Parts: sequence; C-alpha cells; structure tokens
Amino acid sequence: MRAGKDDLGDEGLAKVAVVSKTRIIDSDVHPWINGDIEGLLPYMSGAWRQRFEGRLRLPDHPLRPPLAGATSIRRDARPPGGGAGGSDPLFMKEDLLDRYNIEFAVLSSIQAGKLVTLPNTDEATTLARAFNDYFMNEWLVVDSRYRLAMCVAAHDPLEAAKEIRRIGNEEGIVAVFLPLLNILMGNRHYYPIYEAAEECGLPILIHPTGTEGGFQTSVAFAGGIPSTYIERHTVFPEVAMGNIASMVFEGVFVRFPALQVVAAEFGYGWAPHMMWRMDQNWREFRREVPWIEHEPSKFVLDNIRFTSQPVEEPEREEYLLQILEMVHADRTVVFSTDYPHWDNDSPKNTFRRVPEPMKQRIFYDNAAELYGLGTLAEA
Amino acid sequence: MRAGKDDLGDEGLAKVAVVSKTRIIDSDVHPWINGDIEGLLPYMSGAWRQRFEGRLRLPDHPLRPPLAGATSIRRDARPPGGGAGGSDPLFMKEDLLDRYNIEFAVLSSIQAGKLVTLPNTDEATTLARAFNDYFMNEWLVVDSRYRLAMCVAAHDPLEAAKEIRRIGNEEGIVAVFLPLLNILMGNRHYYPIYEAAEECGLPILIHPTGTEGGFQTSVAFAGGIPSTYIERHTVFPEVAMGNIASMVFEGVFVRFPALQVVAAEFGYGWAPHMMWRMDQNWREFRREVPWIEHEPSKFVLDNIRFTSQPVEEPEREEYLLQILEMVHADRTVVFSTDYPHWDNDSPKNTFRRVPEPMKQRIFYDNAAELYGLGTLAEA
Repeated sequence: MRAGKDDLGDEGLAKVAVVSKTRIIDSDVHPWINGDIEGLLPYMSGAWRQRFEGRLRLPDHPLRPPLAGATSIRRDARPPGGGAGGSDPLFMKEDLLDRYNIEFAVLSSIQAGKLVTLPNTDEATTLARAFNDYFMNEWLVVDSRYRLAMCVAAHDPLEAAKEIRRIGNEEGIVAVFLPLLNILMGNRHYYPIYEAAEECGLPILIHPTGTEGGFQTSVAFAGGIPSTYIERHTVFPEVAMGNIASMVFEGVFVRFPALQVVAAEFGYGWAPHMMWRMDQNWREFRREVPWIEHEPSKFVLDNIRFTSQPVEEPEREEYLLQILEMVHADRTVVFSTDYPHWDNDSPKNTFRRVPEPMKQRIFYDNAAELYGLGTLAEA
Repeated sequence: MRAGKDDLGDEGLAKVAVVSKTRIIDSDVHPWINGDIEGLLPYMSGAWRQRFEGRLRLPDHPLRPPLAGATSIRRDARPPGGGAGGSDPLFMKEDLLDRYNIEFAVLSSIQAGKLVTLPNTDEATTLARAFNDYFMNEWLVVDSRYRLAMCVAAHDPLEAAKEIRRIGNEEGIVAVFLPLLNILMGNRHYYPIYEAAEECGLPILIHPTGTEGGFQTSVAFAGGIPSTYIERHTVFPEVAMGNIASMVFEGVFVRFPALQVVAAEFGYGWAPHMMWRMDQNWREFRREVPWIEHEPSKFVLDNIRFTSQPVEEPEREEYLLQILEMVHADRTVVFSTDYPHWDNDSPKNTFRRVPEPMKQRIFYDNAAELYGLGTLAEA
C-alpha cells in the first residue's frame, strides 16, 4: 500500500495500540548506505579503495519507478538530519521500531541486491564484504532490535561461503541475502552457499533486486523483456516460482534438509496453485526425480517462507482468508513492512486483514522460529 | 490427469451419460501429421519440397517427458490402423467426439508449436502455411465438428497477417495458434497479427510449445534454465503470466478491443493473484500507462480465456470452487481435454469438479462466444 494513504507515516501511536498487543518481527526492512555506496569505501582495503575511488557505482535498471523523483523510497522516510531515506539508523529506530513496538527488524540492503549487475566477480565479492561490515558497524551497534541479512555475491560461491563462515555466527546476523544471478537456485552452483548457511543456521533470503529484466547477468523474466515498471512489478512472482520449483525438484532440500529460504516481496497468492501443480506432476513424473520421496509441496511448507508485504488486495475480503488458508500461512507467511519503500505496509494495515488465529504465527512466531529469535512460549 | 486412471480411455459410453446432458466444446485437441511432418511435403511448392526433402525436421526439446517411450501421447490413442497417436481423424472422431458427444473440437498442432525453434524465417513461414493446408484438407473435411486453430510463424508478422487473411474467413477456422518466440506479446512485433486476427474475428491461441527453456529462439523461463521436465511443466504458468501482463500494460486490448486470447494449458489458479496484483499496481503506477483507463483485471475478464485442462487438483475440493470463483470462471474458463496427451482430462473428470451454476458456461457457452459458434440460447 502506498505511503501517504494508510501507511506508517500517517498513523499516530494511539491508533496502533491494538497492534501492540501482538509482538512483531518485521522480516523485510531496507537500510541505505549513508552517502550512497561511496560510504562503503572505508570498509575496503587501500588497494580496493584506490580502484573504486570516485567511480563506485551500482547501475540502476533503465526503467525507473513511475513515482515522484523516480525513487521507490517514501519521501517522509528521509531523516530530518538529511541523507537518503533509510540511511539513518536512529531515525528509522524512531520511525519504525519505536512507533510500532517492533521487537526485531531484519535488514537487507536493496543496494547490495545490485551486486548482480557486476560482471566482475572480484568486485562483487569485495563489495559484498564491505556491505556486511558497514551494516554491522553502523547499524547493528545502534539498537539490538536490528538484525542483519548479510549479503553475498553469488558470482563466487566458494568465496561467498567463506564470507558466511566469517560472520555468520555473529549475534546480529540472522540470514543470508542472496541476490540472484540468472542461474536457478536448484543449480549446484549455489551448493557451497547452502552448505555454509545451513552450518550457521541461517536462512537464505531472496528478494527482487531491482535489476530483473535489465542486465545480462541478472534474472530474466519468462518470455521476453518487460517494458514498463508496472509490468515488471506485476511479474515478480515468476522469479520465486521458478526458483522454488528449481530448488524443490533438484533436491536442494533433500541435500540440505535444515535449509530455510525466505522469498521476500514476491507475494504468495500464486503459491497454492504451484504447490498443487507440483504435487500433481510428482504423482505422474516422480520417476524423473526419484530423490523426492514425498509430495513436493511439503518442501514448501517445511523449507520456504513468504513475507506478507505487499499484502494481497483481492476483489473480496474473504478471498484473502481463503488464500491464507490454502498457502498454510500459519506456517509459511512472516510479517514484513518493506519500510521505507513507497508501497510499505504498516503493521496495522496487515493486522486488520489477517484472521485472528493466524495473527501470532504471522506477526511473530513463524519469524522467531525462522531466525532463531525464540518463540513466544520461550520468551 | 494421467491416462489409464480416470481418463477418456477407461470409460464406456454409459458412464458418461450424465455429461451428455451438457453440450460440450473442447478447446484444446491435438492432431498429428500422418507420417510425421514429412507429411507436409505435398502441401509445398516444388522448390520448397526439394529444399526440405529427406531433411524436414522440427527439433525436440533435449529434455524428454519421463513417460514410457518418452512420448507425451497416450499409447491407447494410437489408431488401430497404425500411425502416431492423434494422426487419424476418423479414429479421433470415434475415440473423442462420438464417445463424449463433443459438438466442436478446436484443433491445434503441437508439431506446429515447434516452428519457433527455426532460426530461418522463410522456412517457418512456409511450414506454417503447409500445416494449415494439411489440416484443412485432411481433417476439416472429415467431420464438421473439427475446427482449426490455424497456425502462423511469428518470425514474420506481415507474412503471418497475410496467411490469416488468406484462410481466416474459411468456415472451419476458429482461432490463430501463435507459437511464441521469446518476445512478449505486448510488443509491437505482433501487432500486424493482432490486426488481421481481429479483422477476421479470430482469437489468438497460445499454448506451451514444448520448446520453452530449450532454444535461443523459444520462450525462456524466469531466472534460468529448468533442468527437468517436471520442473518445466511446473513453471509453465510463468509464460502466460508474463505475456498477459505484457499485453495488458502495453495496451494491446486498448488498440485491439475485440481481440480475444486463449491461454491454453497454462492453468488458471495463479490468475486471481495476478489480477489483484495488476489492479493494486495500477492504482499506484497508472501514470506510467495512461492508456489504461480502468482496472487492468477487466482486460483479463473481457479479453483472456483459460482452458480447463489440466484441472486443478487442490488439497481440498472446496479450494477449487474458491479459485473458480476468484478467477470468474463463468466468463474466463473454457473446457478442454488436451486429447491425446498423457495428462488429458475426460469431460467426466472435469465435470464432477465444476459447480453446477458454472457448468454450461465452462463446457459450452464461453467457448461458443469465443469462437463464434453460437450460444445455447441461439441454438
């Protein structure tokens, strides 16, 4: 839902009192580097700093969002002290964590998502490490409610695995953000990353990177190249569909049974059909994938999680309840705001749409289990 | 549903009496060329015959279906007189039309779907014309219940438009089968084809071609290359999603308001989510597509039709009813068997799953309106 209508910014604290009775984990929050990504330079060695100085860029998709200023960041999320929206951890603390009494916010960097535009593996790998050190040093220390989805460059899976083992057991690290190249996630290419993530007990987080359909290194959409932002945004689910099918049928979750994958911001209304279709196909074609010994939809229920934002806005209210039931949202959906993006969902906005028996699971428990943050019962 | 369980072949006439009370149009039936596509040679000029003689091939996808004999054709659909399954119009007449009292069967050639593997435009264009002449001469004359989705080669849209105008007004032609290149359907590339189809009152039919994810000319899937048949089959909906979004947002149905598109065999369980997502995005992004003056889901309801096969097999029976309601199946879904494919649906199989108030619309009326075959009321 767009900022300015019924969003985080328009609500006073009083109005969200009802939400505060439910504990909240926000699984999709985007911090920005202060001073754009030149701000990463202090987190590199001298030689790399020299190489990047004055020319550190991660290119934008040629199609910009049709929003004011062509930015996807809410204008009212800009810190009063200046800088880009989302670039001040203290302002975000007030504007998001305090306002909604959010216990944990999982940070992932949309800027890091653009690593996949780089054809150069060493550059991508170096930048990923700098991103991680930046957020550990500039954000995690500010408030213990911030948790980081560390990023890795998929270009070099062995180096990515090293990076996961370097910091993956730090207190504040709760996930691995994997910006996708145009290689489906079932491919062996990614196995070293999965091995390290599973070893550290970290879920893999995927998210639109803003590069899809734009670069030869980045994810392509099915059937050709979308030519408007609205079209690209509409077909994002393709990316999650393709990658989930790939992981399930290639047997990623047979090889890495404890591995969890969070599909953030891809929606989930399409997922029931996909689960049924996988099961239907498995009943006929299982001889092709003999390592899949039970209905493939079980892997979705056990190993895949979807974030709630953007909350579905169906034609009739009851359709959302039906979809939530079909997708087993009490296990598979975790709440997210997507703050500070233009279309973020306030907890209140999502809260009123989710049926009572699922609320605690979606707003807290599912995420607590996923990130190892402790469930309500344990608290 | 797979042949041999509860399929066309296992049922006697008596068992389907209940179905016969409802009139039936079958929107997805696949005839084969007798003697493989060398059978097309008599329908070409001497020079082309010379060029193709002894080397007329349309390549198969490197991944074959994990079915006996690696064929996707039901073995019991092979004509008693010999030849490939689906290659004898007299046997299909008995085995499909008579058995189920089907009033019209819309024929589309899966072999023609493979035209998109050809890098050579003249070859593709010539073959498309030969396919059409073959089926008009060998099939339409056998039984007036056969109707043809004529095919065109998308490689040369102007030649394709000529072909549509050459035969598009013939009695037996009811649709244009458009095997897709890896160019989304919203692109201007296809406009001459749409113009000719609209002029002749023919819907455009798209269908998996069996080439997706296999050739540089054919449709790519999102995010990379699926590596099993079960995975490919699971993600077919991506192709319809991407192409529908492309047509809607590029304004194809604004430019060609009477144009109808049949998405055959891509399922529809994912479509409600997509319609809601399009509308949600349009509320925010409409300044990017000012030619879209109402909710984009209306174009789906007005201009897109989905075929019923493979019928959804959800976890609970009621989910299918919910999905049918969400997708407005009383307007958008047309019945199909997909005979003689391995996973064809018998009318009975689909019939018992569709709620009573929608039966007449799905089994007959929606298709009758779509193909201009006259509705029940007019009959």
